[in-house]
Amino acid sequence: MRYYIHQNPLDYDGSQLQSLFTYKNFGLMGDSICVFRGKCRVEQNEMVDMEDVAAKDWIYSEDMLHFIVEHFEMDLEKTIIRQRLLIATIKEELEALGVKSLRRTGDDIYDGDRKLSVSIATLSPVSTLIHCGLNVSNHNTPIPTIGLTDLQVHNIYEFGENVAKRYCDEISSIGLARCKVRGVV
Amino acid sequence: MRYYIHQNPLDYDGSQLQSLFTYKNFGLMGDSICVFRGKCRVEQNEMVDMEDVAAKDWIYSEDMLHFIVEHFEMDLEKTIIRQRLLIATIKEELEALGVKSLRRTGDDIYDGDRKLSVSIATLSPVSTLIHCGLNVSNHNTPIPTIGLTDLQVHNIYEFGENVAKRYCDEISSIGLARCKVRGVV
Amino acid sequence: MRYYIHQNPLDYDGSQLQSLFTYKNFGLMGDSICVFRGKCRVEQNEMVDMEDVAAKDWIYSEDMLHFIVEHFEMDLEKTIIRQRLLIATIKEELEALGVKSLRRTGDDIYDGDRKLSVSIATLSPVSTLIHCGLNVSNHNTPIPTIGLTDLQVHNIYEFGENVAKRYCDEISSIGLARCKVRGVV
Amino acid sequence: MRYYIHQNPLDYDGSQLQSLFTYKNFGLMGDSICVFRGKCRVEQNEMVDMEDVAAKDWIYSEDMLHFIVEHFEMDLEKTIIRQRLLIATIKEELEALGVKSLRRTGDDIYDGDRKLSVSIATLSPVSTLIHCGLNVSNHNTPIPTIGLTDLQVHNIYEFGENVAKRYCDEISSIGLARCKVRGVV
Amino acid sequence: MRYYIHQNPLDYDGSQLQSLFTYKNFGLMGDSICVFRGKCRVEQNEMVDMEDVAAKDWIYSEDMLHFIVEHFEMDLEKTIIRQRLLIATIKEELEALGVKSLRRTGDDIYDGDRKLSVSIATLSPVSTLIHCGLNVSNHNTPIPTIGLTDLQVHNIYEFGENVAKRYCDEISSIGLARCKVRGVV
Amino acid sequence: MRYYIHQNPLDYDGSQLQSLFTYKNFGLMGDSICVFRGKCRVEQNEMVDMEDVAAKDWIYSEDMLHFIVEHFEMDLEKTIIRQRLLIATIKEELEALGVKSLRRTGDDIYDGDRKLSVSIATLSPVSTLIHCGLNVSNHNTPIPTIGLTDLQVHNIYEFGENVAKRYCDEISSIGLARCKVRGVV
Repeated sequence: MRYYIHQNPLDYDGSQLQSLFTYKNFGLMGDSICVFRGKCRVEQNEMVDMEDVAAKDWIYSEDMLHFIVEHFEMDLEKTIIRQRLLIATIKEELEALGVKSLRRTGDDIYDGDRKLSVSIATLSPVSTLIHCGLNVSNHNTPIPTIGLTDLQVHNIYEFGENVAKRYCDEISSIGLARCKVRGVV
Repeated sequence: MRYYIHQNPLDYDGSQLQSLFTYKNFGLMGDSICVFRGKCRVEQNEMVDMEDVAAKDWIYSEDMLHFIVEHFEMDLEKTIIRQRLLIATIKEELEALGVKSLRRTGDDIYDGDRKLSVSIATLSPVSTLIHCGLNVSNHNTPIPTIGLTDLQVHNIYEFGENVAKRYCDEISSIGLARCKVRGVV
Repeated sequence: MRYYIHQNPLDYDGSQLQSLFTYKNFGLMGDSICVFRGKCRVEQNEMVDMEDVAAKDWIYSEDMLHFIVEHFEMDLEKTIIRQRLLIATIKEELEALGVKSLRRTGDDIYDGDRKLSVSIATLSPVSTLIHCGLNVSNHNTPIPTIGLTDLQVHNIYEFGENVAKRYCDEISSIGLARCKVRGVV
Repeated sequence: MRYYIHQNPLDYDGSQLQSLFTYKNFGLMGDSICVFRGKCRVEQNEMVDMEDVAAKDWIYSEDMLHFIVEHFEMDLEKTIIRQRLLIATIKEELEALGVKSLRRTGDDIYDGDRKLSVSIATLSPVSTLIHCGLNVSNHNTPIPTIGLTDLQVHNIYEFGENVAKRYCDEISSIGLARCKVRGVV
Repeated sequence: MRYYIHQNPLDYDGSQLQSLFTYKNFGLMGDSICVFRGKCRVEQNEMVDMEDVAAKDWIYSEDMLHFIVEHFEMDLEKTIIRQRLLIATIKEELEALGVKSLRRTGDDIYDGDRKLSVSIATLSPVSTLIHCGLNVSNHNTPIPTIGLTDLQVHNIYEFGENVAKRYCDEISSIGLARCKVRGVV
Repeated sequence: MRYYIHQNPLDYDGSQLQSLFTYKNFGLMGDSICVFRGKCRVEQNEMVDMEDVAAKDWIYSEDMLHFIVEHFEMDLEKTIIRQRLLIATIKEELEALGVKSLRRTGDDIYDGDRKLSVSIATLSPVSTLIHCGLNVSNHNTPIPTIGLTDLQVHNIYEFGENVAKRYCDEISSIGLARCKVRGVV
């Protein structure tokens, strides 16, 4: 598993959550995590969470740090567990920068009642996919939010790379952990 | 998925990491997490991590809080991802009690260079299994450790129940998250 | 697994056999069986059984009791085995009402040479699905049929609920049966 | 999938529920159902159902018709669904002989409160396995039972072959049903 | 698994690589390999290999022997391994005809630097699929190629049938090989 | 996937076909292929192929080049397909050395009616495993055989490394091939 940091601005409108996005755009083949930064605006017809659609929730942020993860395996539940681990990892990387006030609830990160993140996981015909977006700014969001800059994280791409690198390392170490145990009765 | 808190002392010697342990001992059928407290001493011939066996590592703690998790599914890698999430959850539950100094590295929790936890995941003929032990006391351990009491956690069973309950809730919410998304292209 | 009885008339034209039908229409999340009653008319372009398409078979019934089952697992063969068990269950529930003349052949139920049921199972991008329809009336069907009213079943929704309830119970008991056996050599 | 009828008496003590039993004894390779007749006596240490072990239930019948099914696939839940279908099939084949008084509850068949059958499904290292035994005689059983002879079934092997043949045919038709449908959205 | 030889000319434009192609056109249900002969011209929008799309490669041959394989199982990696074995088999069948100069590289067959074959494997909503095309003629191809006629293979359909028959036999023998071994520790 | 060449003599008696053999002996973690050379003598009680056991076949060779492959995945059929590909690869590597007289039949390689190879694939509790042995010498074998030295292959370890390297490369390229295609309808 490898990562790619895309340093140019790129908005997220939901259509990026498609199979082979990172390969087709950035040439990275295989399991991958891609990091980019831009506005987030997902309309109802691009939403994949039917609960949000039913609630007529919408997602908007002026400036977000985005992660797109692709695993070429078809077990969606397994990728949702990976998604939870990614969210825990993001919180832990923020702790390494001195941010100690965050709380994870499922696939959300909060500071008090202000939300830092949005995330979804789903299936494509050939893979499973995760999107996670972290507010950089908290301006004009439809619900109370907090942004990375409020948390004094200013080197946004560097932070994104730290998360991506640690996620890749952890997926790799999980793969090896599977290969060093004997079975039990 | 359900949990069971066994309030009587019970030592862990590795043989508890076997299929149907919680059902056979406590009558809980199905995916489960069982919590108990006691000494931890695992001899070489009970170890399942061949890396520890090769390194002639051994595991000893006078007093530990133990978790045995069983998932009746045969994908070991998936259960190792769950194990990592369990470890992240334990750390997060300690944060909720005010302990902000911990760091997760894979399936280990550290306070500085002192280790709080041991953990392993493996396969049985009918299920996948996780053991995680948290030092209550840090006396006489073969490596530098920290115990829950050092972290001012004194209601050990209550803490164990909080972890078990949150793990069950998260596994359940993961199961539902899998059932509310449409696929993408 | 849970069931939902929709008491208002609802026709079946094939488009109901889609992922998340029960969640999107009736709010039931997770594995589910949904029961409703209405006309059945499936045109060629909505048919999923390519054998029927090739034979230019068509499906029509003035009044049917419909079951839509969704399992969020991708093994179609497994869901076809569940479909056969659902058909056996429907026949057994009719026996409990005193109807002793029925015969199951694969996914069909017959009384002599008159057909009571239509059924199909298939894959969506996120789940596997079953439709089963039982004639209430036998009027104007393209082949010889028998209806529930001919079998003296007059409380149609109650019968549908009995089937749905028993199917849910059986799926649940199968889940537990998987968790109480040791392996053999 | 093929079947084998072993016409010589053979007792069942639990050790027959092992991988490759039919291949090693009767030369039939691949998914199979094997039929034989003999006493049934399973001691505690051969039992695979831990619920029976916990309840100190024991299994004894002077004369039973036995079925051993082996599927070379590792999904135990799937084989338990097949087991339920096998039990439904046995009941349906008895109906074809005029026996209309039976009732299936999970993997059991009853006539009133008298039990006709015992059954279990489990995993071996290379396959999944089902045992089902039907009382021929109801003498000296530890609980109230009914036997095939009480139901006026006297040609025991022929009945066993009818069940085996129909089970093989159904598994084969399930395999084809999986191969003739298009997916839905 | 069965094969079908279609003796009438049929061009390949990529749209033949779809689920149930062999069943819908030739009535063969289940895992299958279908053989036909005709021009090969795949435009960019029908290509499934995103590497070819990115490289703006295109595929053209005046006359090819085509194989379409369908396995009703959803593990694409497994079908890619089968694809490699099919390519090895094609080379081996050519050796049986005295052609000793060929070399396999992944899913390609070469004679020196001239390419004999094109091949791709992918997923449909209900199955996995392989296309393999062998040049009959080497005229007007966009890259240096060799054709079956250059290799002195003149009975094209007979050669296609030999390959198809051997592939079916090998898949069948693989299925049995899985059913005759005990597990190890 | 990585390979290990063990340059010291090591006999094969069947007990090497166990989980984690390469990790425990040579420290290579994860999917692996290990190459060594030594006598081959497998007694009945170490045989895993029940067909050989039934036929009272036995396996003996004074000097063999051995390959032990381990894939940490539980689909035995998939590993048997890999085994066939390994056998095809061995034959192809011999062709690269000028040996053009060989023929593959399933998992066997022959020169005329003389056998070059033995091979088996099976399951362990945590992985799937392949053994393949190639005769170096053809002395004193129980059936007509041919050895690598008869084929003028004298640098045995170098040949073993070529096979191991190419197998690793092919498994890796299969993994990537799975990650560059879009699905079809």
